[in-house]
Amino acid sequence: MVKKLAVGVFLDRVDDMAEALSFSRTTGYDYVCHKVVEPEATELLLKSDGDSVSAPFSFSDLSLMSADWSHSFVGHISDLNSHLASDDRILRRKAASLVKYEIDYCMHLNAPAVMVEPDSKYTANMAEIIHGKLNDYLNSIWIRIPMILEDELSAWDASDNSYNVSRSGWYTWTAFHAECNYEKRVGVSLQMSVDIPPEEEIMRWLGEPIKSVIIPTDVFVQNPKGYPVLTKLHQQLLLRLFTVTSQVLIKPNGPLKEEHKFYRQYIDFLHKKFEEANVEDSWVAGYDDYLQSPLQPLMNNLESQIYEVFEKDPIKYVLYENAIAAAIMSKQPEETSEKLIVMVLGAGRGPIVKAAIQASKKTSRPITLYAVEKNRNAVNTLLHLQRSLWKELGFDVTVVHSDMRKFNPPVKGDIIVSELLGSFGDNELSPECLDGAQRYLQSDGIMIPQNYTSFVHPIMSAKLHTEVRTLPEKNAKTDAAHYQTPYVVHMKNKYDISPPQKLFQYHHPNRIPNDTNDRCQQLDFEAKADCVLSGFAGYFESELYGGIMMSILPSTYTEGMLSWFPIYFPIKNPLQIKKGDKISGGTSVKVHLFFFNVTISG
Amino acid sequence: MVKKLAVGVFLDRVDDMAEALSFSRTTGYDYVCHKVVEPEATELLLKSDGDSVSAPFSFSDLSLMSADWSHSFVGHISDLNSHLASDDRILRRKAASLVKYEIDYCMHLNAPAVMVEPDSKYTANMAEIIHGKLNDYLNSIWIRIPMILEDELSAWDASDNSYNVSRSGWYTWTAFHAECNYEKRVGVSLQMSVDIPPEEEIMRWLGEPIKSVIIPTDVFVQNPKGYPVLTKLHQQLLLRLFTVTSQVLIKPNGPLKEEHKFYRQYIDFLHKKFEEANVEDSWVAGYDDYLQSPLQPLMNNLESQIYEVFEKDPIKYVLYENAIAAAIMSKQPEETSEKLIVMVLGAGRGPIVKAAIQASKKTSRPITLYAVEKNRNAVNTLLHLQRSLWKELGFDVTVVHSDMRKFNPPVKGDIIVSELLGSFGDNELSPECLDGAQRYLQSDGIMIPQNYTSFVHPIMSAKLHTEVRTLPEKNAKTDAAHYQTPYVVHMKNKYDISPPQKLFQYHHPNRIPNDTNDRCQQLDFEAKADCVLSGFAGYFESELYGGIMMSILPSTYTEGMLSWFPIYFPIKNPLQIKKGDKISGGTSVKVHLFFFNVTISG
Repeated sequence: MVKKLAVGVFLDRVDDMAEALSFSRTTGYDYVCHKVVEPEATELLLKSDGDSVSAPFSFSDLSLMSADWSHSFVGHISDLNSHLASDDRILRRKAASLVKYEIDYCMHLNAPAVMVEPDSKYTANMAEIIHGKLNDYLNSIWIRIPMILEDELSAWDASDNSYNVSRSGWYTWTAFHAECNYEKRVGVSLQMSVDIPPEEEIMRWLGEPIKSVIIPTDVFVQNPKGYPVLTKLHQQLLLRLFTVTSQVLIKPNGPLKEEHKFYRQYIDFLHKKFEEANVEDSWVAGYDDYLQSPLQPLMNNLESQIYEVFEKDPIKYVLYENAIAAAIMSKQPEETSEKLIVMVLGAGRGPIVKAAIQASKKTSRPITLYAVEKNRNAVNTLLHLQRSLWKELGFDVTVVHSDMRKFNPPVKGDIIVSELLGSFGDNELSPECLDGAQRYLQSDGIMIPQNYTSFVHPIMSAKLHTEVRTLPEKNAKTDAAHYQTPYVVHMKNKYDISPPQKLFQYHHPNRIPNDTNDRCQQLDFEAKADCVLSGFAGYFESELYGGIMMSILPSTYTEGMLSWFPIYFPIKNPLQIKKGDKISGGTSVKVHLFFFNVTISG
Repeated sequence: MVKKLAVGVFLDRVDDMAEALSFSRTTGYDYVCHKVVEPEATELLLKSDGDSVSAPFSFSDLSLMSADWSHSFVGHISDLNSHLASDDRILRRKAASLVKYEIDYCMHLNAPAVMVEPDSKYTANMAEIIHGKLNDYLNSIWIRIPMILEDELSAWDASDNSYNVSRSGWYTWTAFHAECNYEKRVGVSLQMSVDIPPEEEIMRWLGEPIKSVIIPTDVFVQNPKGYPVLTKLHQQLLLRLFTVTSQVLIKPNGPLKEEHKFYRQYIDFLHKKFEEANVEDSWVAGYDDYLQSPLQPLMNNLESQIYEVFEKDPIKYVLYENAIAAAIMSKQPEETSEKLIVMVLGAGRGPIVKAAIQASKKTSRPITLYAVEKNRNAVNTLLHLQRSLWKELGFDVTVVHSDMRKFNPPVKGDIIVSELLGSFGDNELSPECLDGAQRYLQSDGIMIPQNYTSFVHPIMSAKLHTEVRTLPEKNAKTDAAHYQTPYVVHMKNKYDISPPQKLFQYHHPNRIPNDTNDRCQQLDFEAKADCVLSGFAGYFESELYGGIMMSILPSTYTEGMLSWFPIYFPIKNPLQIKKGDKISGGTSVKVHLFFFNVTISG
C-alpha cells in the first residue's frame, strides 16, 4: 500500500517553537526536526556536576500543545559520539547521561521519533545507549546515514567502474543495527547527496528498514523557470525509496524561508507520480511485508470471503479453462457425443467447474462433471449451483461431499483438475492429496496441473525478520517456533542476495512405483554484496497442461495473477555475510514441513 | 463514549436473502437476523444419517457478497434445546452436531454474531456446545433472554410490591454465562416486553454484558398520529440500556413491511436524545469500562501530555486556590507585608503554583513560593515559568529539582500544598511522601489536603472482570498477577451489590508519634439481590482545608471534576451471591499494596 506522504523540515536554532512550527506548516511542511539541546547548553551540561537542574536545558514543553509535540516534532539528539568514546571517564559518563536525558525529554514530549547521529568510528558507544533506552522510549529511532560519506568519493575507481563499498554509510548502519539487536523501532534516516551510489548499493538499501529520506536542498537543481527539481537519477532514486518509506525530510541550507515551499510541492508532485505508477497494486493494499500463515485448506475449512477473494483472480481461471480445453481436445480430437468425465477435486465454490463448463462449450465436446469437496459449507454452495445455474446451462454435475483421498467414484476420470498449490508449490500438500486420487484416473488420463517446481533464494530483510520476531508469543510452543514456520508475504522491503534457483519438482500423474514425495537437496548461492542474511524467499512455477504455464517466480511471473504471494522462510539469527561468500542451503521437505540448514563459507 | 447506533431487523422465512437485505436497508435497517437452517431442514437433518451432505442445508453464500455477510447478517441458531437433552442418545448427538454445523456455517460467512436461544430447563447442554465452539467462532454470541418470562407474571406479588425474581430470565443467563466460563464474547441479547421488570432487576441487567436489545413491535404503542412509539417507562428503560449497548434489533410480528421504517426512525430519535443527554461526557470518550493502570508518579516521570490533561480540570485547581486562600487567611488574618512561605510539593508543570499566586493576589497577602519537583522534564518547564510569567506577575518562585522526601529547605514552610492523591486516596503513596516532608513544616503549619478517606463496595461487572482476564499476559509474572492489582476505570457496565462504606483515613500533618500508614479493616456488605461478585469499586473523599471538600464518591461527587476515575479491585474467580448474603471484605494496606480477603456467608 502506498502510505500517505509526510514531509518534514530540518530546522536549526529556533527561538520560538510555536512560531517555527506554524511557519513550517504555512510553508507546507508536516513536521519539524530540531535539536533537543542547543550546543551551548550541551557544553554547559557537560561541565556541570550532578544530576540536578538549575537552568532550563531545553525549550519549554508549554510552547506547543502536546498533540503538536506528538505529531509534528522529531527530536534531534546531540552528536556526542566523540565524547562517548573519550579517555576522560567522567566526560564519558556525562555525555552518556546527556544523551539519555535528551531521549527522556523526547519521551516526555511523546515525540514520534528521535534522530540519532552515529559515527563510523564510535558506533558501539552510541548504539549501546540507544539499545538501552528502547525499553523506555517506545517510538521510532531514526539513525541518520548519508548515502555517500563525504570522504568516500575517493573510494570510486573509475577505471573498472568498481566501488569500494567497504567505506559506505551502510557499514555504520549495519553495525549500529546489530548492536541494537536489529530492533524493529530502529531504522535508517537515509540522507541523499549530489552523488548517487552504484546500483547494488541502492538495491541493498532497499532491503533495510528505511524510516525516512533526508534531502538537503543542495541536492536539488534549478529548472529553467528557476524552481527546484531533482535530476532524473535522483528522481528515480527517490521513486524507488518511496516503495519502502513515505517520510521525507527537507534540510535547508540555513533558516526556513517562504520559497522552501517549492521543495515540498516538488516532493508532492513526485509522490503523486509514484502513486499513479502503483495503482495497479491496489489489491495488495495493506499487505506489503505483512506476514500471513499459509492457508491449510486440508486441515481447516476455508471461509466464504477467502473463496470470494481467490475467485476474483482475473487470470488463473482463464489459464485453467485453456488448459482444460487443451486436455479435452487431446482426449477427443474429433467431435463426438461421447462424454468425457472431468473431475474437479477440491471444487470449493465451483470456479474450476465453471472453467470446465466454459472449456466444454468452447471446444463443443460434451463432458460429465464431478465436483468433490470436503468442506460442507462449500458443498452447500455447490449444491445450490448444481440445482440452478449449472442445470440451466445443461451440465450435469455430481456434487460429492468427501475428502478426495477417500472418494470412491463409480467411474474413472478422464481428466482430473485441482488447484491445491501453495506459494512454494507443494506446501499445501498437493502431491499427497493427488497421490490419493490417482487411483480413479483412467490409465491414459490427464491431471491438471501436470507438474510444479519450487524455487528459492537467500534474502536480506530486517523488516521481515523483525516482523517474525515481534509476532505475539501466545501460540508459540517454543521460543524458536516462529522461525520454524514459513510465511506468505508480499515482499517489498528486501534485498536479493543471490538469484533464485530451482528446488523440488512434482509430476502428475506419477507413474513411478513406490515413489515418495520427500525431497532433499543442497543449493549453493553466492552473495552479491556484503549484507545480512534474514532468510529465504520461495516461489513456484507450474505447467497446467501442454505448455500452459502459471508462475509466481519473478522472472517468469504470470502477469496480473493475484492468488499467491511469495513465501518467506526466516532463519533464527540474522547472519552477517561478505560479498562472494557461499551460502549453502541444505533443504528437505517431508509432508510439507521444510527444513533449512545454512552454512556460510568465505 | 456513545457508540454509533446500529438497528437490525429480525426476519423470518426469507426466500431471497439479497432481496431481503436490500429491502431491509431501504426500510432503514443496518442488518438482518435470520435462521441459519429452516425448521423443515432441521427436521430432515435430524433424521438423516452420517455427516455427508446431499441437499443444500442453508441458503447459498453466493446470495450476498462476503462483506454483506460479515457486516449485515446475524445467524439465528435453531432452538434444539429439548433435543439436546433428549433420552435418545442418537438424537442428542445429531442435535449437537447440527448446532455446531450452524455455528460453522456462520463462521464460514464470517457473521459478526450468532443468536442462541437458551432454555431455563436445559441451559447446560446448549451452553457446553457454545463454550466448545468459542475456539473456532471468534465473533460474538448473543444469548437471547426475555426480560420477563411469559410464565413469570404470576411471580408478582402486588400485595407487598415484591417480585419473585428467582424465575426471571436473568437466572438462565447467569447459568449459561457461568457454563461458558464468563467468556467475553458471550453476551445477552435482552428482549423487552410489554411489562417492565422492577428497578432492582433493571439495575442488575445494567451490570451484565448486554450485546443487543430486542424490541418486538408488540411492545410499541401508537401515538395519536398513528406512529409507533414507546411508553414513557419503556423509553426510560431503553435510554438506560443505551449506556451499555447501541445495538437494537426490531422484531416484527410477521414479514417486514415498508411501514416498519417508523420503528427505526423512532429508535434513531431516542438514541439522538440519549446522545444529547450525554455530551457532557465527551472528556471520557473511549474510556467507558476501559482499564488503566494507576499512575505511579513516584516511580515514573509523567509525560507532557499527562500533565496537560490533568491541568485542564476546570474544578480541581479552583478548589485548591480557595483552600490555599483560606489557609493564608487563617495564618494572616490581618493585612501584612510579611511573606508566608508556601511550598508546593510535586509541582509538576506548575498548576498549583499558579493557584497559590491567584490565592495570594485574591487575599492581598504576599507569599514566597517553593516549587519542588523530582521530574527533571517538568523542572525544565518550571524554570521557564519562573523566568517569564511568574516573574512578570511579581512572584519569587524557588524551583527545586528534588524528591520532596530529600529536600532540605533553608526555611520551614507555613503552608505545604500537594496533589498526590490517587483514585483510592492513598494509593499513589501520598501519606508516605508527606510524612517525609512534614519535618520542614512549621509546628503550626498547615498541610493541604488536610485529610482523605477511601471508600469501597462490592460490584458485579462481567465486563470489567473479562477485561482483566483478557489483558495481554506479556508482563504478568504469575497467572494471578492481573487480579492482584487495581485498575483505574470509568465504570459503566456494573451493578452495585451494596452501597459504599468508609475504609481508611489519613490526616496531615500527622502529629501522632511513631504512627504508621499501614491500615487493616473488615467491612461487611449485604447483597441487595442474587448476583455475581466481580470485585470491589473504590473512591476517595478529601478535605483540602477548612471544609473545602473534593470527592469522587458517587454520593458526594464534586460536580465537573475530571481528574479521577474510580478504582477497581478484581477478584480472581467471580462468586455467585444470594440476596441477603454477607460479603465480608477484610482489607489491609501496606505501602499502597492492597489485600482483600473475601468470605461469603448466607
